[in-house]
Amino acid sequence: MDRLIAAVEAAQNPSVVGLDPTDALVPQQVIDSFAQEVAEEVEDPSEIPAAQRAVAYFEFNRTIIDAISDVVAVVKPQIAMYEALGPAGVDVYAMTCEYARSQGLYVLGDIKRGDIGSTAAAYAGHLRGIGEGEAHTDPWHEDAITVNPYLGSDGIEPFVEAAKEADKDIFALVRTSNPSSAQIQELELTDGSKLYERVADLVEEWGADTIGSHGYSRVGAVVGATHPEQGRQLRKRMPHTFFLVPGYGAQGGSGADVAGMFDKNGSGAIVNSSRGIIGAWRKSESYSTELDAGQALEVVAQSARQAAMNMRDDLRTFVY
Amino acid sequence: MDRLIAAVEAAQNPSVVGLDPTDALVPQQVIDSFAQEVAEEVEDPSEIPAAQRAVAYFEFNRTIIDAISDVVAVVKPQIAMYEALGPAGVDVYAMTCEYARSQGLYVLGDIKRGDIGSTAAAYAGHLRGIGEGEAHTDPWHEDAITVNPYLGSDGIEPFVEAAKEADKDIFALVRTSNPSSAQIQELELTDGSKLYERVADLVEEWGADTIGSHGYSRVGAVVGATHPEQGRQLRKRMPHTFFLVPGYGAQGGSGADVAGMFDKNGSGAIVNSSRGIIGAWRKSESYSTELDAGQALEVVAQSARQAAMNMRDDLRTFVY
Repeated sequence: MDRLIAAVEAAQNPSVVGLDPTDALVPQQVIDSFAQEVAEEVEDPSEIPAAQRAVAYFEFNRTIIDAISDVVAVVKPQIAMYEALGPAGVDVYAMTCEYARSQGLYVLGDIKRGDIGSTAAAYAGHLRGIGEGEAHTDPWHEDAITVNPYLGSDGIEPFVEAAKEADKDIFALVRTSNPSSAQIQELELTDGSKLYERVADLVEEWGADTIGSHGYSRVGAVVGATHPEQGRQLRKRMPHTFFLVPGYGAQGGSGADVAGMFDKNGSGAIVNSSRGIIGAWRKSESYSTELDAGQALEVVAQSARQAAMNMRDDLRTFVY
Repeated sequence: MDRLIAAVEAAQNPSVVGLDPTDALVPQQVIDSFAQEVAEEVEDPSEIPAAQRAVAYFEFNRTIIDAISDVVAVVKPQIAMYEALGPAGVDVYAMTCEYARSQGLYVLGDIKRGDIGSTAAAYAGHLRGIGEGEAHTDPWHEDAITVNPYLGSDGIEPFVEAAKEADKDIFALVRTSNPSSAQIQELELTDGSKLYERVADLVEEWGADTIGSHGYSRVGAVVGATHPEQGRQLRKRMPHTFFLVPGYGAQGGSGADVAGMFDKNGSGAIVNSSRGIIGAWRKSESYSTELDAGQALEVVAQSARQAAMNMRDDLRTFVY
């Protein structure tokens, strides 16, 4: 986790901007502006909705990245939003990761993969890339990915191995931010602990051989901002585990809620906001449906930058 | 689950062929045969390893599909094997699904997705497609997908909704086939049940509104062949839940092991084999490294077809 921690320290900002474009978060005129270009390029009209969004989402992402890359150190594209467009969207996911990296950002791919060992080894290509020597390439351009622990150790170890080889990181789901996450994650075990606590202990184990110079392993944990007290307890229970904290902002988590997930040095966690940053233009007085695509993207950029600075300042108040 | 059940009944075969190509399962001369074509097409030599495998894997898959489409009713491409190649592989995943469907097969996309509600809604595009009316398209070409239950109900409901709308199905992980799956799935809860049993009960609930004419809901369960006794118990515990049973063949499960996962009518489950079918050529006396790519694919086809018929006959012995 050393590369991530260094990047966050350099920015003095533990924020993560979630790059999760949807039709509701990308101004309509931006999507519309690609209608003609796309209509001329596709072979079949049924490809238009996906192709048009694919180019619009990339343009939107590039605008956000350019607006926030000197404010935050980390972005987290959520691959689901891209898969919603089909394979054309997956291309844009990878292009977004590549562009974010080219702008000096640490790219945390929120892909939540998990499977049996031999299959997890294939998914670990996200970290390892493909080919050897001069022919090696890294088609996903991710610095870290999220993984799902439900299959146990042999579904996680291939990711840990790949992370070590490629100097990258993974984040395993422990306590997610969504309302019904308690259904499974808070089930009480016969020893009195909760399921997510057992998963937390496994996560500490999975990372034990990969502890870096800052005291954190390559195996992080996802702990939702919507569970401040559990997060505080987990911080103590998992001393070598760096946290990715989603759920700040639109999902209800505040700076005060996440403060307990940091260590005494103000490190140990990064906090994600998606809609609160990339959708900030929707609350801007400068935005109107009369704007053209370029003007709308200017409002997107200004609003995202301001929201990212506000989030940074909020977190600095509570964390540092 | 009615479409799936009808297809399986028509074939009198509950087998699923896993389309999980890897370098070990695709004859080297098939991969090599695309070297020149790919080298001429890519912009950057570093793209060659992925691009070459992408075309080779598709050719391999098409060979398998043509060889088995009158023997089995269902194929299950594992998206991890394609993601290992980067976005170029994801294109081939979707092309494989499309081709399999065009040959009349039911396509179960093994993607094991799962996330919070708003994100799961985006992943549900795998089932729902994109666009409305004439502009609607289904870029993934899947009839069903696998999903991960760790996030609880609100991470599953968007998939159930999409399945209902699109007349498709989902399969949630309950008891996976891998060795360390017990670490989490068999944790004992304070009420004396195991975690996977609680997940099983949730799966029954999630499907309750979607029970079709054969008595099974649109929400199936993944139950590994490597747990025959637990599978037998789950069959009773989950009367409206259709099972996808991985782990037959290469992972050690036999026809006898899976028999208890079927209902008294010989329905209620499908059984997957991947390596045992698509890698059967490796045990064929007709194969040698001296064969050219076309000859090697002929051996692949013959071996896969024979292995699929053997599996069908094995399952018929124990199930019907």
